[in-house]
Amino acid sequence: MGDPALDPGEVIALAGRIDEDFAQRIEFLLELDRLKTVIRRSRLVDQTRFENTAEHSWHLALAVLVLAERADIEVDRARAVAMVLVHDIVEIDAGDTFAYDAVANGDKAEREQRAAERIFGLAPEGIGAELRDLWEEYEARQSPTARFAYACDRLQPILLNASTGGRSWRENGIRAAQVEALNRPIELASADAWRFVESLIDAGVKAGALAPE
Amino acid sequence: MGDPALDPGEVIALAGRIDEDFAQRIEFLLELDRLKTVIRRSRLVDQTRFENTAEHSWHLALAVLVLAERADIEVDRARAVAMVLVHDIVEIDAGDTFAYDAVANGDKAEREQRAAERIFGLAPEGIGAELRDLWEEYEARQSPTARFAYACDRLQPILLNASTGGRSWRENGIRAAQVEALNRPIELASADAWRFVESLIDAGVKAGALAPE
Repeated sequence: MGDPALDPGEVIALAGRIDEDFAQRIEFLLELDRLKTVIRRSRLVDQTRFENTAEHSWHLALAVLVLAERADIEVDRARAVAMVLVHDIVEIDAGDTFAYDAVANGDKAEREQRAAERIFGLAPEGIGAELRDLWEEYEARQSPTARFAYACDRLQPILLNASTGGRSWRENGIRAAQVEALNRPIELASADAWRFVESLIDAGVKAGALAPE
Repeated sequence: MGDPALDPGEVIALAGRIDEDFAQRIEFLLELDRLKTVIRRSRLVDQTRFENTAEHSWHLALAVLVLAERADIEVDRARAVAMVLVHDIVEIDAGDTFAYDAVANGDKAEREQRAAERIFGLAPEGIGAELRDLWEEYEARQSPTARFAYACDRLQPILLNASTGGRSWRENGIRAAQVEALNRPIELASADAWRFVESLIDAGVKAGALAPE
């Protein structure tokens, strides 16, 4: 009997006995598992650990479902859900880039384009192109749906951070003006959500978690 | 300055300054964060740790997007995505019930109904009822869309398990016949996916990870 030959290679080979298209879909899904090991700067609300990008993406998809009715713009909700589900897949290769890290953000676009090429390229052409288009639309932030998806992606870490004593702001020496500048696009999607974020920033300053200005 | 008053209660209170509906949405989203701490029996492909239910739900949503074209039945893909995003939310209260644990599955339905009452009840009525309906449809497994969503939910842990030497099968002393019986509903959604799962079960038996019969 010996050691089992049960590994991803064997699973993909068995999927290939169905057909090549099926094997590509299974390989893509197994590759996506790696997003669960990409670690972000936000902590869970219970503060036991940092959040990973896969569970962040799930939380965002729920935020899209739950907040769509509060958007000021016309949103294709199902499309926004799919968009946030794929928006960070490129981090499997490119890693999570902390939003307030100007240096790392310098070559972020290039790193992520290469990642998109490789990762979406694992899937069969039709679905691979569809998911990549969603990612491109998200990155461009021109459509109302992408603007709303982006607003949810900006709001979610602020929710976590403000619920955990602002630890990520403190640890990274973030200033109120930085949070304002980065997150102002929320206003394009929902004036109410932006007013709410402004009140969280004020609370962060009052609590000493955010440097004023 | 003293200790910060930045915690979930304060965040919800500030959301309440927008309006009550907005505060309920934010409270619901913060509550959902707890799904990231519900631990399943499947390991990540890299075997570094067990999977949690939030990232499992994300992975499932991607499986729905990627496998829908391979379904033999008519699937509302966007609805199936939303369904798998919410399908395990009740585990926040009810915990993850191992699919092969007959005792724990005995009162699972009752525990989960209570959980659904409380958790979906946190959201405003409209969206709370919509998400709960999705969960009920998933649980009933009568609609083609729910059958496909369920098939993805059955397939995903098998993919992880077969990619990690069948560790979860070994550790829990699972028999091939149990895997067959539990997962046969996959066939209702996709004959190809079921043929694939049968080959994974065979491989599990050959590798000594699954007891034959």
